[in-house]
Amino acid sequence: MFRPEIKVFDCTIRDGGLTNNSNFTLDTVRAVYRAICEAGVDYVELGYRNSKRMLPEDQFGLWRFCDEKHLRHVTDGIDPRDTKISLMMDAHKAEGQDLLPAEDSVADMIRVATYVKDADKAIALCNDATAKGYETTINIMAISKEGGPFLDEALQQFEEETQAHAVYIVDSFGALYSEEVHYLVERYKMYIKTKEIGVHFHNNQQLAFANTIEGIIKGANYMDGTLYGLGRAAGNCPLELLLGFLKNPKFRLLPILEVIGGKIIPLREEIDWGYHIPYMISGVLNLHPQQSINWMEGDNKDKHDYAEFYRRVTELED
Amino acid sequence: MFRPEIKVFDCTIRDGGLTNNSNFTLDTVRAVYRAICEAGVDYVELGYRNSKRMLPEDQFGLWRFCDEKHLRHVTDGIDPRDTKISLMMDAHKAEGQDLLPAEDSVADMIRVATYVKDADKAIALCNDATAKGYETTINIMAISKEGGPFLDEALQQFEEETQAHAVYIVDSFGALYSEEVHYLVERYKMYIKTKEIGVHFHNNQQLAFANTIEGIIKGANYMDGTLYGLGRAAGNCPLELLLGFLKNPKFRLLPILEVIGGKIIPLREEIDWGYHIPYMISGVLNLHPQQSINWMEGDNKDKHDYAEFYRRVTELED
Repeated sequence: MFRPEIKVFDCTIRDGGLTNNSNFTLDTVRAVYRAICEAGVDYVELGYRNSKRMLPEDQFGLWRFCDEKHLRHVTDGIDPRDTKISLMMDAHKAEGQDLLPAEDSVADMIRVATYVKDADKAIALCNDATAKGYETTINIMAISKEGGPFLDEALQQFEEETQAHAVYIVDSFGALYSEEVHYLVERYKMYIKTKEIGVHFHNNQQLAFANTIEGIIKGANYMDGTLYGLGRAAGNCPLELLLGFLKNPKFRLLPILEVIGGKIIPLREEIDWGYHIPYMISGVLNLHPQQSINWMEGDNKDKHDYAEFYRRVTELED
Repeated sequence: MFRPEIKVFDCTIRDGGLTNNSNFTLDTVRAVYRAICEAGVDYVELGYRNSKRMLPEDQFGLWRFCDEKHLRHVTDGIDPRDTKISLMMDAHKAEGQDLLPAEDSVADMIRVATYVKDADKAIALCNDATAKGYETTINIMAISKEGGPFLDEALQQFEEETQAHAVYIVDSFGALYSEEVHYLVERYKMYIKTKEIGVHFHNNQQLAFANTIEGIIKGANYMDGTLYGLGRAAGNCPLELLLGFLKNPKFRLLPILEVIGGKIIPLREEIDWGYHIPYMISGVLNLHPQQSINWMEGDNKDKHDYAEFYRRVTELED
């Protein structure tokens, strides 16, 4: 029933870090790492390796930079079994000079997140990481806004100019329907011949898990989930649902259920990720979620006056 | 872009009534009815017309029986525009004698909910309602448990022996994946030649909306949603997402957003519907949600010890 080529990524700490400026405690990150290893998930992404010269260090928690000493702190003494460690580098916020040779790093993989317009920066970062001995992927963000010829050009470049293991469809806005997922996988396949296709979806329209399944059906083999969907705004594909769907006997669900109950549910007291109408609206309208986040976090009188929010964002769109 | 044959049902009060024994206030039901009419949704289901001889009346609110006087109370003075009123009758909990002729009733449609084993009861109820002048549908519950020849036999009977407008796929357990939805619509089509196919999904695996889309793609034309997904356990396909997906200009989203913010969100103080791990587990395991509901509502020491819940239900399955 299962497809052995499929690789599952947990990016709870990395994408979840967009909800709290990557301010997870060492204890939480260590518990997540341990559970993912016990569950047999292929990769765990513990945060960003972004540049302290390009981001104000004092405004972020440890997991926006992932210093090696902090990575060691949360992983030392835990048997990784078959789980590898991934870090994400934003093409426009990261520099190769922050990356040690892989043999000196806790990390095994570097995933380069990029917009189509930053394709050349992404290629440079990716090739630097490859040269240093890391596995790599390239993750094309905001894909629901990319319909033109520059996407094809970028895909062709990623195919020809990098040794990335996979190129990702990243639905940052949670805007895609299943037919669009099918279309995008087919379009990627026109250019991506020697690498896998990856999928990363957001849950604004409660479609993150469903779209991941549709990606799998069309042949994508790299896929992202997070514990209980923790992630920016409406969050991501819940990892527990993904493991429930995949029939690969190497995955174990119990450690995932335990860490969700013990470490993730308590975060809900501070972080209100998940399905909310302002996120649904930005998903339906194919908008960046920032206005919705502002509405949810702002001190506007009535957060539940969704009709007012809808009028406001659609006027801005005119 | 839109398919004019598509009929959308709001069943917030009916399915939502399974979370609170149908104890909605007259004010809430009236507000929902008004909003659905303003939104141009085709049908609104205001509750069950079940039998007071078969159910203890004092244990349920008004909307488990939907007396005509209460229906009039919540609808009088509101312009229905193009919205018709539906009631549900459970094949094993309802009697035709409780149904007035349609011309004397506020209701326009009777939907008969049934298990495959009660197909003959459902046909009798359906034909009684047809004879009295109502539109009808037959809704086959717990479809994820029905794989054998009795389903085919029931479909053939519903096709030949009733004048139902549609026969529904009802995923009561929230267990189906998209491929199973495709399969079931195809299987229904083998028998249902003169009626529409309907879809009603539960959200245990966050697939209610996605599966509704898949039903539409395969040709189902009757579909259910509820405001903010309010419904039993993990709830239903959120109506607001469904209207956002359908491109029919007759639908208006703003009244839906207003009533969600004004009347549905406040219900969350008392009703905890939506995605929760115990519901996810029963969906993945294709179980009736009752054990999950008991766990969520019980005074067990640690509701978030999901691994313990998982062990418990899988042991029961042995």
